Formats: sequence, C-alpha cells, structure tokens
Amino acid sequence: MRFLSETSSDGVREQLFTLGGIPGVLWTPDGGEAASRPLVFLGHGGGRHKKAPEVLTLAHRLVTECGFAAVCVDVPAHGDRPEVEEYDRLATENQARVEAGEELAPLIAAFQARVARQTVPEWRAVLDAVQRLDHVGAGPVGYWGVSLGCGLGVPFVAAERRVRAAVLGLGGASASADAAARITVPVQFLVQWEDERVPREQSLALFDALASEERTLHANPGRHGEVPPFELDGALGFFSRHLGRRCGRPLNLRRGSAVSPSGEPHSRVP
Amino acid sequence: MRFLSETSSDGVREQLFTLGGIPGVLWTPDGGEAASRPLVFLGHGGGRHKKAPEVLTLAHRLVTECGFAAVCVDVPAHGDRPEVEEYDRLATENQARVEAGEELAPLIAAFQARVARQTVPEWRAVLDAVQRLDHVGAGPVGYWGVSLGCGLGVPFVAAERRVRAAVLGLGGASASADAAARITVPVQFLVQWEDERVPREQSLALFDALASEERTLHANPGRHGEVPPFELDGALGFFSRHLGRRCGRPLNLRRGSAVSPSGEPHSRVP
Repeated sequence: MRFLSETSSDGVREQLFTLGGIPGVLWTPDGGEAASRPLVFLGHGGGRHKKAPEVLTLAHRLVTECGFAAVCVDVPAHGDRPEVEEYDRLATENQARVEAGEELAPLIAAFQARVARQTVPEWRAVLDAVQRLDHVGAGPVGYWGVSLGCGLGVPFVAAERRVRAAVLGLGGASASADAAARITVPVQFLVQWEDERVPREQSLALFDALASEERTLHANPGRHGEVPPFELDGALGFFSRHLGRRCGRPLNLRRGSAVSPSGEPHSRVP
Repeated sequence: MRFLSETSSDGVREQLFTLGGIPGVLWTPDGGEAASRPLVFLGHGGGRHKKAPEVLTLAHRLVTECGFAAVCVDVPAHGDRPEVEEYDRLATENQARVEAGEELAPLIAAFQARVARQTVPEWRAVLDAVQRLDHVGAGPVGYWGVSLGCGLGVPFVAAERRVRAAVLGLGGASASADAAARITVPVQFLVQWEDERVPREQSLALFDALASEERTLHANPGRHGEVPPFELDGALGFFSRHLGRRCGRPLNLRRGSAVSPSGEPHSRVP
C-alpha cells in the first residue's frame, strides 16, 4: 500500500493511496489514536468515483459523528483508472440491445456481475491492507453501496465474512439473487419507488432474496437518483447499532490548516 | 378537562385525565417550564389501551430524548371505556363472515372506518384541550399510530391540519385510500412483510395513496405484531426532523419520589 497524499480538515484526515493499481482514499478521525475502530467500506455509483460529493458527505459524517474509518476505491474504468476494453465493448453492445427493444435492467445487472468478478477480490485486498494500519485496526466492518455499489456490493458482502452489516439498494435481483441468498448479516435496503433503472418488483425481489434475519427496507418516492438526504441519518443509525459504536453529535473537531484540493477548507457537513 | 392523578418518575410527568368521557394520559418533561413544546398524539392498537407497555415506551422516549409532550386516549370500547353495543355486533358479524370464507382485511378496514367516525372528533377535542395547557402550549403536532392506530390515524391526520408529520403503518388501503389521498404532510409508513392481517399489496397501496411529497416506507420481515424495536429510533429521528426539536441523549432526568401504579419506580427506558 502506497500513500500518495494527505490532508486534514474539520476533524477528518483524508489519505489518498494506491494498492496494486487500485486507487483509493481512506478517511479517519484527525488526531485519532492508534486503536482499532469500526470501518465502513463505501461502494460508489456508476459513473461516479471515490471522491464524488455524495461519497465525501457520507464519509465525513461517519468519521465526525461516529469515530469510524471509511474507505472507498475507484471501480475499474472509473475515477483515476483506465478504461477497460471489455467493459466498453459490453456497454456498446448493451446500448444496441436496448435500442433493439430489450429490457435495460437485466443487462445492467449482468454487466455489474461481470465487474464484480474483478472487484470482489480487489475489495478484499483493500480491506486486508487498510485493517493492518495502526489508525484503523481490525475492528468491525460495514459496507455501504447503492446502484452500482449494490450490484458490486451484494457479491462482496456475500463473500467477505468480515462485513457484519450492510446498507444496499437501488439494485434488483436479476443477477444478484444467488449472492443475496448467501447474505446473512443485517441489511438496510434502499428502494426508489419510481426507479427508472430498476423495476420495483426487481428491487423487492432482491430484498426478499436476502437470507438475513434482520433486514429492513426503506422506500422513498422518486427516481433512481433521488434518494432523500435523510436516509443518511438512517444509515448512520443502522451502523451505530451494528458496528459497536454509537453515532452522535460530531466528536472532537479540530480545524486543520490543510487546504482541500478545491483550494478552500472543507466546510463541516451539517 | 379534569385531571385524575399525577405521578413523576425518571424525568417524566404522567397525568391521567378525562375529557367529556374520554379517558386519556398526558406525558411531559418533569419540571418542564411553561412553554410550548412539540406534541405527539399516539394512537394505540386494537385490543390495547392508553398505557399499554409499547405506548409507555414510546411516550417516555419522546419526553426524555426529545423534550416533547405525548398524549394517548382510550379508543371507544378499549381501556377504561365501556363496551359499545354496535361495535360488539359488528365484530360478531365479521367473525361469522370470515368463518364463511370472506377476506378478513376489508372487514377490519371497514370496522376501523366506522370507529374513526367517532374518534376523529374526539381526538380533535383532546388536541384542543391539551394544547391549551401551559406546560404543553400550541407547538408543532405529530401523530404516531399503527394497526388500529393507522386505521383511525389516517382519517385523523387527513382532517386535522395541526398534525404536521405522522408515523403510520400496519394498515391497508381498503377503507383508508380516500382519506390517505388527503394527507399531504410527511409520513413514515411501517409494513410487516409477512403481515397476516394486512395483505402486502394492500399496505403498499395505502402507502401509494398518500398525497405527501415526503413519505418513506420501512418494511421489516415478520408478522403483524413483530415490528422490530429499532423502528422506535426511526420514529424519533423522523419526529426530530419535522417537529422542530432535535432528539438526542436523555435530557435533564430528575428521579422523582413518586411511585408508579405497579408499586415500583419506573425504570428509565433504555
């Protein structure tokens, strides 16, 4: 694992790293002592990347309100990673198939399953490396990912026993049902009621496929990209219950002197 | 409004009252100053009553973690109220109809709609009276009720504009869809996935019938009576967002010397 850069602001220490060609970012409490803390692995969405605004928002809250560590890596062909010829070819092919009248959702699901064959071992390696760091340690692990983050997350959570709780959603059963049936840890599952990319019955079928005794579905009106902001509160509450550390008002904020890549100090996420 | 008795314990002041034949109970912060505070109106379930354990649990958390007032009254023919001959007759008739092969859910729904014609004006009168008290005041109002509390709650929330947010659920669209279409305030809606009293599609249809722009559905596995305890956290978070006062760690507990009807001090609800 190679660290590339580090900034601190508003109580959050952000470290960019690379692990065997996988670009990633790790967030931990600024000034946090060397001790094991819960870690949440974040899966970003399709076309997004490891430092997309919605990822930063969630990571900052996990760090400042819960004292957790959070990590996110670029999915192949996303962020700082090169294009993948096979994925480009599949995407072009799927485009043609949709234009020819095929259903979009199963094609998306199959594509995600293909990418997951690469990301599951990558993400397990990242988990290994990050949990060996003194300021993270081998604490309880959670997973958060919706949309592409669900298509990749379901097989990851099914395979990786260290993950003990997961927030998933905006995904359907088309390609994930078998893996979902191997998930037994608590799950909070998000559905957008008018999701134009995942038919409602496919979402509910994926929820039903989970083998977890404890699973809860949160459905909200609107389209795929319109998950309401208050669901972040729900996610924090969920991880608070399952990762052994209560989330509450922001802890021990220290305003650092480091400057973010945008040239301005990060504002504390309300 | 006539007050019948009062006890204080663990930071909660509990007052039993009667209003024109309606027996009720009001909970407020012990030692709370005379100032308007948010009020949550609780609708109890079928066969339950105003001081049922699940009502007390929720009321205590609303008071100690949010500084809210909470009120609950006995539904006709429940708790301290006499039987109602018409309801007995309807219940007996429904029993026979179910045994003859009719669907249970529409009969329950129609029965609840009949009772609601009595409870809507009763509950509005209780709201009037309680909000005239110095230690409650005319603050924001929320509603919480599932099962019977939903069958009665939907018409109440539709009619009573002072209610600005509601937790509802474990109910279906059979008799409530028209009233639900007049609800425009934020709603958190609970569904039990294997509900044996409300078919799943009826639950989802009631959720869909709500006219609220902001509505969120929480579904959990299990039967009608098996709502998981963590949904209380969800309810508090919801009211925290909508009633203008943030819920957090318990506030200003004062251990009173009063003794509960059971002969022992109330233990603080965790």
